[in-house]
Amino acid sequence: MKIVYVVPGPMDDQEAKRREGLLKEWAFETTHVEVRTVNQGPASIESAYEEYLSIPETAKLMISAENEGFNGAVLGCAGDPGLDAYRELTKDMVVMGPGVSSLHAAALRGNRFSVLTVTDSTVPSVYDLVDKAGLQSKFVSVRAVNIPVLDLAKDRDGTLKKLLEHGREVLKDGADSIVLGCMSMGFLEVAEDMEKELGVPVINPAKAALKLTESFAHIGYAHSKKAFHTPPKLESGKVNSLDELLFVK
Amino acid sequence: MKIVYVVPGPMDDQEAKRREGLLKEWAFETTHVEVRTVNQGPASIESAYEEYLSIPETAKLMISAENEGFNGAVLGCAGDPGLDAYRELTKDMVVMGPGVSSLHAAALRGNRFSVLTVTDSTVPSVYDLVDKAGLQSKFVSVRAVNIPVLDLAKDRDGTLKKLLEHGREVLKDGADSIVLGCMSMGFLEVAEDMEKELGVPVINPAKAALKLTESFAHIGYAHSKKAFHTPPKLESGKVNSLDELLFVK
Amino acid sequence: MKIVYVVPGPMDDQEAKRREGLLKEWAFETTHVEVRTVNQGPASIESAYEEYLSIPETAKLMISAENEGFNGAVLGCAGDPGLDAYRELTKDMVVMGPGVSSLHAAALRGNRFSVLTVTDSTVPSVYDLVDKAGLQSKFVSVRAVNIPVLDLAKDRDGTLKKLLEHGREVLKDGADSIVLGCMSMGFLEVAEDMEKELGVPVINPAKAALKLTESFAHIGYAHSKKAFHTPPKLESGKVNSLDELLFVK
Amino acid sequence: MKIVYVVPGPMDDQEAKRREGLLKEWAFETTHVEVRTVNQGPASIESAYEEYLSIPETAKLMISAENEGFNGAVLGCAGDPGLDAYRELTKDMVVMGPGVSSLHAAALRGNRFSVLTVTDSTVPSVYDLVDKAGLQSKFVSVRAVNIPVLDLAKDRDGTLKKLLEHGREVLKDGADSIVLGCMSMGFLEVAEDMEKELGVPVINPAKAALKLTESFAHIGYAHSKKAFHTPPKLESGKVNSLDELLFVK
Amino acid sequence: MKIVYVVPGPMDDQEAKRREGLLKEWAFETTHVEVRTVNQGPASIESAYEEYLSIPETAKLMISAENEGFNGAVLGCAGDPGLDAYRELTKDMVVMGPGVSSLHAAALRGNRFSVLTVTDSTVPSVYDLVDKAGLQSKFVSVRAVNIPVLDLAKDRDGTLKKLLEHGREVLKDGADSIVLGCMSMGFLEVAEDMEKELGVPVINPAKAALKLTESFAHIGYAHSKKAFHTPPKLESGKVNSLDELLFVK
Amino acid sequence: MKIVYVVPGPMDDQEAKRREGLLKEWAFETTHVEVRTVNQGPASIESAYEEYLSIPETAKLMISAENEGFNGAVLGCAGDPGLDAYRELTKDMVVMGPGVSSLHAAALRGNRFSVLTVTDSTVPSVYDLVDKAGLQSKFVSVRAVNIPVLDLAKDRDGTLKKLLEHGREVLKDGADSIVLGCMSMGFLEVAEDMEKELGVPVINPAKAALKLTESFAHIGYAHSKKAFHTPPKLESGKVNSLDELLFVK
Repeated sequence: MKIVYVVPGPMDDQEAKRREGLLKEWAFETTHVEVRTVNQGPASIESAYEEYLSIPETAKLMISAENEGFNGAVLGCAGDPGLDAYRELTKDMVVMGPGVSSLHAAALRGNRFSVLTVTDSTVPSVYDLVDKAGLQSKFVSVRAVNIPVLDLAKDRDGTLKKLLEHGREVLKDGADSIVLGCMSMGFLEVAEDMEKELGVPVINPAKAALKLTESFAHIGYAHSKKAFHTPPKLESGKVNSLDELLFVK
Repeated sequence: MKIVYVVPGPMDDQEAKRREGLLKEWAFETTHVEVRTVNQGPASIESAYEEYLSIPETAKLMISAENEGFNGAVLGCAGDPGLDAYRELTKDMVVMGPGVSSLHAAALRGNRFSVLTVTDSTVPSVYDLVDKAGLQSKFVSVRAVNIPVLDLAKDRDGTLKKLLEHGREVLKDGADSIVLGCMSMGFLEVAEDMEKELGVPVINPAKAALKLTESFAHIGYAHSKKAFHTPPKLESGKVNSLDELLFVK
Repeated sequence: MKIVYVVPGPMDDQEAKRREGLLKEWAFETTHVEVRTVNQGPASIESAYEEYLSIPETAKLMISAENEGFNGAVLGCAGDPGLDAYRELTKDMVVMGPGVSSLHAAALRGNRFSVLTVTDSTVPSVYDLVDKAGLQSKFVSVRAVNIPVLDLAKDRDGTLKKLLEHGREVLKDGADSIVLGCMSMGFLEVAEDMEKELGVPVINPAKAALKLTESFAHIGYAHSKKAFHTPPKLESGKVNSLDELLFVK
Repeated sequence: MKIVYVVPGPMDDQEAKRREGLLKEWAFETTHVEVRTVNQGPASIESAYEEYLSIPETAKLMISAENEGFNGAVLGCAGDPGLDAYRELTKDMVVMGPGVSSLHAAALRGNRFSVLTVTDSTVPSVYDLVDKAGLQSKFVSVRAVNIPVLDLAKDRDGTLKKLLEHGREVLKDGADSIVLGCMSMGFLEVAEDMEKELGVPVINPAKAALKLTESFAHIGYAHSKKAFHTPPKLESGKVNSLDELLFVK
Repeated sequence: MKIVYVVPGPMDDQEAKRREGLLKEWAFETTHVEVRTVNQGPASIESAYEEYLSIPETAKLMISAENEGFNGAVLGCAGDPGLDAYRELTKDMVVMGPGVSSLHAAALRGNRFSVLTVTDSTVPSVYDLVDKAGLQSKFVSVRAVNIPVLDLAKDRDGTLKKLLEHGREVLKDGADSIVLGCMSMGFLEVAEDMEKELGVPVINPAKAALKLTESFAHIGYAHSKKAFHTPPKLESGKVNSLDELLFVK
Repeated sequence: MKIVYVVPGPMDDQEAKRREGLLKEWAFETTHVEVRTVNQGPASIESAYEEYLSIPETAKLMISAENEGFNGAVLGCAGDPGLDAYRELTKDMVVMGPGVSSLHAAALRGNRFSVLTVTDSTVPSVYDLVDKAGLQSKFVSVRAVNIPVLDLAKDRDGTLKKLLEHGREVLKDGADSIVLGCMSMGFLEVAEDMEKELGVPVINPAKAALKLTESFAHIGYAHSKKAFHTPPKLESGKVNSLDELLFVK
């Protein structure tokens, strides 16, 4: 089984390799995991605009991956930008978003979850994800640690401390499980430390998305084409490629 | 008061002028309305992918419009693609999406509404819009007439007939108001005929969005920057323009 | 376009004139606005009972207004007392309630709103309004400043201070927009000061209702008669006037 | 224990006596039940306007009843018009509305209920009642038999036939219990026949409201004054009676 | 009318008698109330597991009670364990659970309620009850006093103090009514003291369930067999008794 | 990794072996799967009562499995009977219910799902599962094929035909994914045929639960002990075993 992890923004090779190493560690023994990064996109995603900016290039990577025979793809951003589009453009490859995956994982492990996100600017996207997952009745609260994405790894201890602080707050809000709302938090492997400290599940979005993708890909559980239709112009043959969908006057 | 209507895909000048004419007709006497179109984007929007494809160029138009002193902007697609991004990137200019605007207009005129959309492929985006509007408890049903966007105007009578047919169905579902889920339907001016025929409000998304934009712009009711934050990299001065947000490796 | 603003309780002429002045200021240049007051009704509305008390006389004013050719009517109380009845009794005149209008305006400007109301006794009516608007999923909290309606204007500074205090609290609750739940607050023009101070939209119900009424009236967007039926006895001709609906034994 | 049943519209003495007879039959042996009718009000209630019209006189009857020592009051209309007001104006007397009572009774007997109401014009008030009861998640559908209230008893067999017809429809909708949405239906005693015929609970609003009122009155379970505040002007002594709340210019 | 109160765990005779005494006090004069206890079951119920443990024996008691001619049965645990099963296994006897009954009683007395439960381990079952009652939109919060069930009566004053403390907290959360989530709290008769102290309704689950059972039993308002089907093997005659449903390999 | 599949009712060895064979086929290559069956319990589960009947013995099996070192357990009934109890009684072993798992799997593959269940008597448990999963907003409808569990396999073609028939109905209801609500349906492997025929995802609860259990067990994602507390009497040492929780008078 071949799984691709698609980073929807440019990333230096060393960090990409490091993430690939962790993904291999988390994967089932029989899974082949590979990290791919786009050549152009946002440096990090902290706004809706940057989410959208990441989509055109990532879409091409997703289509190539399916053509190359990957069985599943993990989208490398916890806001799930473009997830619906990638599902429209692919057929049988399982495409999973870590945002929605983490929320479902939390709902499967506990009864009521909260989300810790990076910055105030990403809070609205958490409400959107909860709506997309359909899990409004399991959602307790969202809090932002207000550390920019690109700074999260610079001071792992500081980041962990902040996360624990806000984690204790959401437990008071009534949560019995916590979701980390950013892939860079996932690859810091802080969820594991938090879980020990706080005594409740803390979902690492990178890990959760990988495992769900492996599971679904192993049994061919791709998405519903009735929920994610192939764009009609492509389906009807009016256009033949992604590029032709972009019309230049 | 100056309002810009931004078409998020290339459109021939004649049709753009025709739409501008209708907008002027619907506008308050003291409003200046202008239609702008992007130079590249999807020919029409019938999928999530095409929604996303429309955003980068439209964002630039929105920013220019604010810089030129427009008081309000109507996004020219009833799926509201990129609305949150445009609100992140602008400050005081009112930016309204016809999708969400129409749903609120329907909720203000009646108790329970249904949506008529173009194709099966756009049905999922209607569910998303209802979530974004927060109007789940007023929403009855969605039905697609399954006429491609670019064919809607080719046979106005045929389109109207189909809309009436599906309109009668949604009244049986329990709706007391109907929303048309496509701007090209709006500029066909079929809502007005349907209203007469069916005896219930039928919201023309183009008209509804224009009027709400005028209203809000006239009293300076722009969006909440706590709901639509300026992207942190722009706000903090790490980058100075939209273009710099797109990082090329 | 002619808009009537109907005060559903007796009001001294000077205050009525002052309010009319403000409404004219907020209106589109081409709108004619007029204030009308009932001759008997509650001195102010701080309970469900007073809401109901205001309805019989106000209904008569609404019907006259439609007969006189007004295109739209703004109900002058943010609890929207009798709104459904006035819509039952009128045909083509747009009748808008500031309560529901403000909630929709807040949902259009931000993602999640709170309401500041006058007294604890009006808190339950805010929950009712949220249900009527169908905006449960956008509603964060309600808080009462506990200043009687008739005292709000006596100490504008004190009122503003209290509103700012409670406004800061609802921002902590997670709101990104605020609705003022009383017309007398609206005509104090404190929303504008609060907006500057708090940095988020603060909806003035008087202004929001006026603008929505103008917008809808300008394009003939009256209410659904399938949602607000003409009382069957009137419709069938069993009785010929409002007065005959009241049967005296 | 003394229970008053308050008819919020004028009713001829014979029918009032007949209803009192049935109430006595349904009551616990130790309950004293009495029917009171207002002298002026709507002949029947088929619109929001008629609901409101019934309130001022009924309020006076409610207050007298409490002063006379009644332990509980059943409001005699299944739309519960003015229920919140009567609870504001009374202190320890249990005041119950048959609308909300019936919905709760249905939810206690089954899992998902539908409502059969009189005319299309009363359908919207059923949605309101469901919101007031907070039972949105148990509510399946509402259907109107479209027989005017005052005609229901003229042809009991015809009415029953229509109710059975619509009852079968709502069972297909998925309901496992049915609520009759009109007191005149209750006093026709058709619910009992329907229950036998359809094999599911059919709630008679008159009976359900009486029994809940008896139950609650017997243990002193009156309403929350934090939910139904005494009107502040009365509470603070600014006015001394209901009449003074109505201000005449 | 004969009502049985079924304790779903072994209880010493003295305490059973004491409870019977209180129930008689609360009952209508014409009601015969009897307490029955199972011979084996959990000592108290503070977990889902103990809930389930109580069911097989209690089911037998319920069936006997119906056969003996009881008109109604009150399940003696506020978590309502097995309520659906007892309704499946009985026909015409009213079977009521105090958990769901109390929530409906609270919703009938006020607008928004909170629940005070015994231990953190029973908090999740409160969320389940709210879902079962369908009253999510009326539910404010749940708090645990963290006194084991079997210790509640050992220090009535201490228990009351804790309940008042947490009661004040839930009023701050916005509740206007309070539900006690444990029958042993009910038989301590602390609700009555709390009501005086806090000024809002405090529902005693034992009392509320008894009164609703009496009411419904008096008019034959048993449960919907379309919601609580007789187990198909029993209905079809494939097995003839409860014991035969338990298959031993 | 060792996974146990626990059948909560007696099952003949041949069928148990057959199911084990299928589970091995579906499992990851490195997973050891074993089927265990209880010695006494219901022959099949078609009612809430039979659900409860299955719990005491199954609980013992779950505890043994954890003690033997199993990493994960799949509960072998799609109604998830006792899931919360098994999670209370275990510590680190992942325990998954196929009911809730399938609903989440459907929500991850599509936008809106329906459930096909065995008999009318199991329909109510589907509503409960949707509440437990918190997926009310993704749920479209439930339909019963009305074939007893023990007859499903007797005529595979007949069963498949019925499922396809009802499957087509739920697609008309608006579902874009389908969940089979019974493990015996899962082990018939009809979901796979249905998926081909209907063109939408059809979730096999046995497969979905296995894969989620493997995924979660592989990364140690057990349940929240704050959501599923160890029964206080066990935790505090007041009793030392499951058996002692059952008190015999």
